[in-house]
Amino acid sequence: MPTVSKVLNGRADVASETRARIEKIIKQHGYQRRRAGVPVGPRLVDLVFHELGGPWALEIITGVERVAREEGVEVVLSECGGHRTPRQEWLDSVLARRPAGVIMVFSDLDHDQRAQLEARSIPFVVVDPVGEEQGGVPSIGSANWTGGLVATRHLIGLGHERIAVIGGPAETLASRARIAGYRDAMVTAGLAVDEALVRNGDFYVGGGYEHGRSLLSLPDRPTAVFAGSDLQALGVLRAARDLGLDVPRDLSVVGYDDLPVASWITPSLTTVHQPLVEMADAATHLVLALAAGRRPRTTRMDLDVHLVVRESTARREA
Amino acid sequence: MPTVSKVLNGRADVASETRARIEKIIKQHGYQRRRAGVPVGPRLVDLVFHELGGPWALEIITGVERVAREEGVEVVLSECGGHRTPRQEWLDSVLARRPAGVIMVFSDLDHDQRAQLEARSIPFVVVDPVGEEQGGVPSIGSANWTGGLVATRHLIGLGHERIAVIGGPAETLASRARIAGYRDAMVTAGLAVDEALVRNGDFYVGGGYEHGRSLLSLPDRPTAVFAGSDLQALGVLRAARDLGLDVPRDLSVVGYDDLPVASWITPSLTTVHQPLVEMADAATHLVLALAAGRRPRTTRMDLDVHLVVRESTARREA
Repeated sequence: MPTVSKVLNGRADVASETRARIEKIIKQHGYQRRRAGVPVGPRLVDLVFHELGGPWALEIITGVERVAREEGVEVVLSECGGHRTPRQEWLDSVLARRPAGVIMVFSDLDHDQRAQLEARSIPFVVVDPVGEEQGGVPSIGSANWTGGLVATRHLIGLGHERIAVIGGPAETLASRARIAGYRDAMVTAGLAVDEALVRNGDFYVGGGYEHGRSLLSLPDRPTAVFAGSDLQALGVLRAARDLGLDVPRDLSVVGYDDLPVASWITPSLTTVHQPLVEMADAATHLVLALAAGRRPRTTRMDLDVHLVVRESTARREA
Repeated sequence: MPTVSKVLNGRADVASETRARIEKIIKQHGYQRRRAGVPVGPRLVDLVFHELGGPWALEIITGVERVAREEGVEVVLSECGGHRTPRQEWLDSVLARRPAGVIMVFSDLDHDQRAQLEARSIPFVVVDPVGEEQGGVPSIGSANWTGGLVATRHLIGLGHERIAVIGGPAETLASRARIAGYRDAMVTAGLAVDEALVRNGDFYVGGGYEHGRSLLSLPDRPTAVFAGSDLQALGVLRAARDLGLDVPRDLSVVGYDDLPVASWITPSLTTVHQPLVEMADAATHLVLALAAGRRPRTTRMDLDVHLVVRESTARREA
């Protein structure tokens, strides 16, 4: 024991071979202790994005940061570089630093990655799940089907009948749900869905512009477009302008998300408010509760959305 | 030695008092090792914002993340909640987790905070310094004076003479430099600077709107506005619209930053491109170089800016 103590305290009067043996054991032990789950230092939460592609991400970051500050947790930010699952280096890093939990945004873990986190009791929560929800993974989404419904109903209420919809990537749950909401509103109102007016794109400005130009160049062009995101809607506004169409006189446009930019632009954008900050807030509270060993009764929830009417929609010209 | 080894390996055949003594020494040792500066686990870089107030922040985050991924470093994100210096909890957390370095964005450390990081050899770099640069703090800025100059020259070249400028907060270095560039361009062109047209605000949409309304309601209103940020410019565009003025026919507007939103809107915004992603990139490389014990010859630099001409500026109507 005195010898070990000497080594640990950095004393010189220990034979170098003995010191080396003790150091070696200590070093192995050090790594074991970290793996054994004793939290050292400040708590961390990992926040992982599919990609940091736009102002959408900033809303989520803001929400997570707010709760993290209140709770005395620090946030480690990563992106998957456009992939749906993080790379192995990220996982290695997570396993080494043992965050309190992991929040995945519009991204997911593969089977092995999940198993590795679970084995170490690191909880994870998904925000805005990309695909069908698997197993009991806790998730925070929003009412996408309702969003599609209220956006389309608003346009129908303004007298529009030729209403186009541009979704996000076809495989994503959010996009499918919104388009389903659109279909329901159309059918309920006795309006035919023209499949030529139902599109899938990405959630960005460029995709909105391409679909916008294509839709607005049709012989029997739509008088209204329900876009899958505010950025897509910006692309549609630009396409309309390029084709000499005035919004909202010649074309009504509804966005989705209600990012700050929706109220900054002219005409300001009628859009479906998705509570991104609140979703991030709820996800952070949830992952911290799970980390503390509490299992809230509900670990899967969709927050409500609502329509915000601004200047980009108007009654259809007779 | 065999006894220590048994304890370290979690074996049961050790007297509990002996185990307790060894655990105690190990525990003390564990903390000492961390304090002694041996990096354990993955490397972290701290990224600290004054506030996550808009798309500007996302550009910086994107740049830092990109380099961090290449370099195998993880990013811990914090904001000061609108204050210029981080709170003590943040510093405590930094000292405990020992990041490779700290990047401060439009924010600063106070004297004590600097001393505490320096004592632990944690380097820090400032992006877009707020105030006069103090001591030898490494920093990455951009050519704000040149930005003010080229923006104003562009407007003068289009025949404008009544040119207003809206800066950021009066105490910030960036704002003062841009307004100085504006003054230089005006004076060089033989144009008088009307102090009623020189404003200081914040960098956000609301501030731009307020100053825009005020400026455009003057009896002898300006025919052009050079705004301190793209968001301010959006506020000016909205004010113009509310007052029935067409941009660019009745009013030319130049922004600053060249955020993605500048090209999304209609009319798209003529603006000064500030290389935010590259500034973040340079700051991350710099802080990692300092962490590795290298001291680059230049640790203070301003990256170049350039004007991007789009649709919001036009020749003054005769």
